[in-house]
Parts: sequence; structure tokens; C-alpha cells
Amino acid sequence: MQFVTINKDEDLATITMNRGKVNAFNDALVDDLRQAFRESEKDSQTSALILTGSGKFFSFGFDISHFLGYSKEEFVHYLGHFTDFYTEVFLFPKPVIAAINGHATAGACMLATACDHRIMARGRAKISINEIGFGSSIFAGSVEMLKFCVGERIAQTMLYSGAMYTGDQALKMGLVDQTVSEENLLAQARTVAQEFAQKDARAFRSIKLLLRGPVAEAMRSRETASIQEFVDIWYSPETWRHLQEIKIRD
Amino acid sequence: MQFVTINKDEDLATITMNRGKVNAFNDALVDDLRQAFRESEKDSQTSALILTGSGKFFSFGFDISHFLGYSKEEFVHYLGHFTDFYTEVFLFPKPVIAAINGHATAGACMLATACDHRIMARGRAKISINEIGFGSSIFAGSVEMLKFCVGERIAQTMLYSGAMYTGDQALKMGLVDQTVSEENLLAQARTVAQEFAQKDARAFRSIKLLLRGPVAEAMRSRETASIQEFVDIWYSPETWRHLQEIKIRD
Amino acid sequence: MQFVTINKDEDLATITMNRGKVNAFNDALVDDLRQAFRESEKDSQTSALILTGSGKFFSFGFDISHFLGYSKEEFVHYLGHFTDFYTEVFLFPKPVIAAINGHATAGACMLATACDHRIMARGRAKISINEIGFGSSIFAGSVEMLKFCVGERIAQTMLYSGAMYTGDQALKMGLVDQTVSEENLLAQARTVAQEFAQKDARAFRSIKLLLRGPVAEAMRSRETASIQEFVDIWYSPETWRHLQEIKIRD
Repeated sequence: MQFVTINKDEDLATITMNRGKVNAFNDALVDDLRQAFRESEKDSQTSALILTGSGKFFSFGFDISHFLGYSKEEFVHYLGHFTDFYTEVFLFPKPVIAAINGHATAGACMLATACDHRIMARGRAKISINEIGFGSSIFAGSVEMLKFCVGERIAQTMLYSGAMYTGDQALKMGLVDQTVSEENLLAQARTVAQEFAQKDARAFRSIKLLLRGPVAEAMRSRETASIQEFVDIWYSPETWRHLQEIKIRD
Repeated sequence: MQFVTINKDEDLATITMNRGKVNAFNDALVDDLRQAFRESEKDSQTSALILTGSGKFFSFGFDISHFLGYSKEEFVHYLGHFTDFYTEVFLFPKPVIAAINGHATAGACMLATACDHRIMARGRAKISINEIGFGSSIFAGSVEMLKFCVGERIAQTMLYSGAMYTGDQALKMGLVDQTVSEENLLAQARTVAQEFAQKDARAFRSIKLLLRGPVAEAMRSRETASIQEFVDIWYSPETWRHLQEIKIRD
Repeated sequence: MQFVTINKDEDLATITMNRGKVNAFNDALVDDLRQAFRESEKDSQTSALILTGSGKFFSFGFDISHFLGYSKEEFVHYLGHFTDFYTEVFLFPKPVIAAINGHATAGACMLATACDHRIMARGRAKISINEIGFGSSIFAGSVEMLKFCVGERIAQTMLYSGAMYTGDQALKMGLVDQTVSEENLLAQARTVAQEFAQKDARAFRSIKLLLRGPVAEAMRSRETASIQEFVDIWYSPETWRHLQEIKIRD
């Protein structure tokens, strides 16, 4: 795997995104993440997962300038790949803790909402589903996961405004479950992951599916149509102009 | 239009209900409102809407003494008209800001919950879905919209008690998004409407439908049956007696 | 009825669980409860119900050591009986107030969430859906009722952790609606029940079904499958070992 490292420590696996300065998603990073999750699922020594990013970002979300070179068909294919992946994480049979070390925007926030527990570094880091800010829509599944996390009212406020939130704001909204100082983030993630890992694995999986199965059905029933609409808007002249102006701030 | 005025200011349209002292809904007011929304939808110069009332009420809700003269069939027809209208507002493709200038009770609160953002005047004004207080049921769609606004627990508390809430109580419950002084209400509504209007129109519409489409499906699937039950209860001797005692307080 | 008493006082019926020290559920207690609810439904003098427990527990939930003597088939039959019962309470046509006098754990918390209003004694009493703590799953219907009470995020936190909450913690989470001192519990329950009883009965029933009907559909659609999975996990060697270690603390 080129863009992801897996670190095993006792029965915990830490999956770290590591691509460029901002861990922006492309096909290869999503491939690597799916492979890392699948290996961890099969590995009977692994009881719980931590998902984090290297550097100053958890992840910027999609590598927009990269995708501007894609044809519509290629982009639709990638989006199916990405939304399948977040649905796998949402239903992953083992506990997944997001350790949000830095900015988590757009697709990266969607991925964080798929996890079982979110811990965010206090301070500089911001979290947001900010697509509306650059004239983009989102995906049906990501809306359902966000509603599952924060309820419908706050989901609507977030999606209509595209606002960026600090860890402490996100905590108040229920978008993350805990905030800690940057230097304690991984230690706290391990503590939480250990608590999850000590639960009976079959009972955890069963309860997780009771909670999330109906949400996943709602996600799947409208995902393909929403990808089609997302792409229509993405390639519209107004949105395309916005996308070309996006510079990744570091 | 007899009971509604449309005021255009740059790309904002302000729709003001203006019928008697309390802007109570009858067929004609609902007709005028639907026409005003439809014109604003077609008007390419209009980017966002503000919905408000003239005088001391946003609206009292149904003009009960007027409807006591309706046959069951006429009333069922009106209710289909009214619930179709709030569903159109709920799914309206442009942003709709409710500027709740005064009391918003019963059907008027339902209409407010259909909007994208609610700003309420602090002070005297109360908001409530108070049907249970006079022995009336409500409509399936209005329950779904209320759940969408405030979550299931608070929706249940509101509907079981029929309690009246001040702006600040409503803000705490999530029933409104902001409160301001009466004199700043319309200015604040314009500020918020401008923020919405600056978003990409297609992205906004797409995200709004992703959030609200599944809710609208749930609304429609049970609306007709709920209207039938509503009417059965409305014309029952106990409820009829309550309805005849209702005096509109000014 | 062996394990339940019904006390009528004007138009309120108080149903008290009274089995051993902890009011643990077995087939007979669930039978008695169903009978008490059905009698109260038919009794035209009864307008509202209060459900409470005798002694220091509201209820411990299932009488685990008793059920360890059941065959799988017997246990599946009991679980169908229990989940049918909580669904009846969830949709009960008259108001039901839970007066949570003491600990309410596992199945007892599920039953409490089926009621229209929960008042909990402050102090010693704890409330929890703690199945994961002894390696057990739960039922689809109980998850839907819990989500209805506290929203999806808090439901998930409760179910993943199995944590025990005091009345004041439960109040903050929305799991109960009020807390009072132990000595004022029943008086406060009567006050609240009277408020409910004064509402128009048909309007109440209609509004309750508009709120809860769609939830009940979701409960029923997956209940049988979830019972099957619950039983598979219950009889697994790991969970069986946990179950045998459970001592009822008094």
C-alpha cells in the first residue's frame, strides 16, 4: 500500500492516511484504505481500529485538482468506489475510532461520520461538510450518516451553511464525541479503542447492525441517483469555475 | 391576490400574509400563498424568499369559525389543499426564511416548520402546535416536519402538551433558529436570506432534496389517511363543542 | 394476577410490578402485565396509567438465572411474548407514565422507553440498557424505541457502552423527562397522569399513532430476525459464561 500504513499494537490496528501534505483522496488512497480495512476485518488478532491522518490534516477530502482531469465516466466510477467504501466503514463489524488529528473537510468529514466514535484534536483543526461553499452537492449516503450523527436539524444547518467548526464547536453539536489536546490524541484514541475491544465482539457487531442497518438501507436506496446528480452539478460551468479556484491551504 | 403581498428587493422576495387581524388561513389565503410561492419560483430574479405576517400575528392558523360553516367534503378538500401547500414549501427549490413576527399557532406553526430557517421576534410572540388543547388531531405531514425540526422527543412533548412557547424557549428546543427584537426582525431575515441567496442555486436545491426528500415521502404516504381521521375527530361532538368556544384573542 | 397489582384512584390506574426483590421478568410477570394493560384499556373509567415497581427496583429486566433453564425454543417464545408486549405499550391508546422508583436495567429500560413520559427517582436508582456488558445483543424494536426517545447518537452511545445512568444523567440525555425525590415520585406521576388524562382521548390516541406508527412499523419489520440473532448470541459459549456469573445485586 502506497498511501496508507497499518500499525498493529496488541489487538488494535491504527490505519494512517499518508498522501501528500493533506491526505487528499484519489482512487489509489481509497483503494489502500479499503484494503487496510479488509485486512483488519480478516485479522483475528485485531479487535478495534483507529483511523487517523499524518501531518496537519486528517484529510482535505477529494483531491479536486486531480479529479478535474477525470472524464465524467471515470469520476462516476470513483464516486461509486468512495461511497461503497464509506458504507463499508459505516457497517464495519469491528469498532472504528476516528482520531481527527487535523482538518477534516468535505469527503473526509463524511468518512469520519462513518466511524463509531470521533475524537478530535483541540485547537487549529476544523471539521466541515463544506461542499455548498464551492457550489457542489453531496451524496445521499453522506446525508444519512450525518443525520445519524447529529440529527436532522444540525445536519441541515451544517449542509446549508458549509461552515467550518473547531473541535469544541463540533463537540457541542454532537459531530465529535470528545476533544483532546493534539499531543494526547492517539493515546486517548487507544484508550477508547481498548474499551470497545473489550466488549463481546458478536454482541457489538449485532448491536451495531441493529442501529445502523436501517440507515444503510436508506443510504443505498438513493446513492446511485445522488451520484448522478452530484456529477451533473460538478461539471456545470458555475461549479467548474469554483472548483478550478480551489487551492489547498496547508 | 387579496390576502398576500409580494415585495421584491434585489433578489429577495418578501411574502406577507395580510388577512384580518390574525392572518387566519382560509381557502383564499392558502390560494394566494401558493400563487405567491409559484410566482417566486418562476421568477429568475428571485433567489430567496421571506415569509412573514402583518400585524401582531404571524398567523393564528386555521380560521376556525369560518370552517365551522364547511361541510365535511369541503373541509377535506381544503385540508388537501393546505397540506399540499406546506409540502410544496417544504420542498421549495429556493431558500425560504420564516420571519415569525408574532403568534404562530397550530397550522401556522406547521407552515413555519416547512421553511429552511426560522427567525422569531423576542417578547410577546408565542409559537405552538396546540391542536390537542382543543381536542383536535393533526396531520401526518405536520408530524414529520416537526420531527425533522426538533427531533422525535421534543416533537412528542410539544404535541402531547400543546404548550405555547416564547421565542427564547423555542430557540432552546430547536424549533426556531434565531430570535431577535421585533424591530430588527425583517432586517435580520434579509441578512440571512442574502446568505442563502449567495449559495449556488443548483447545489442548494440538490442538498435540500437529499435532506428532505425522504421526509416528504413519509409525509405523503400517510397524509390522506391522517386527513380522514382528523376530520372524523373534528366533527365529533366533544371536539365540535371545543371549536365553537374558540375566540381569537388579539 | 400473581405478580402485578392494579390500583384505581379516580380515572388513574397504577400498575405495580411485584415479583421477588427485583421484579425480574419471567413469562408469568409479562402475562400479568399484558393482562393489566388490556384490562385498563377496556375500562372506560380509566383515562391514564402509571407503571411502577415495588421495592428498590423498577425492574432488573429478564430473570436471567430462570431463563438459563429454558430451551432455545422456549426462550424464543418468551422473547416474542416480551417484544409483543412492549410494542403494545408503545402503541397503547391511553397515556402511560413510567414512575421509575429504582433501578431499571436491560429489558426494564426497554419497557420504560415504550411509555409516554418517564419520571425517575433521584439518588440511588440507575437506568441502563446494559446488555453489551454481559455479551448480549438486544432487539430491533428496543433500538427503535430508544432512538425515538433519545435520538440516534445518544442511543448509540448508550448501547455501545452499556453504561448505567443516574436520574439526573438520564434527564440530561433525554432518557427520562423529569426527576423527583423518591418520596414524591408517585405524587408527581399522578399529577402528570392527570394532565394527560384531561386531554381529549381521541385526539391523544390519534396524535400518538401519528408519532409512533411509523416507528412501530420499523420495529415489527425486523423484530423476528433480531430475536433469532439475539438467541444465537445468548446461547454462545462466551455469552453463556457471562450470564451464569450474573448475580442480582439488591
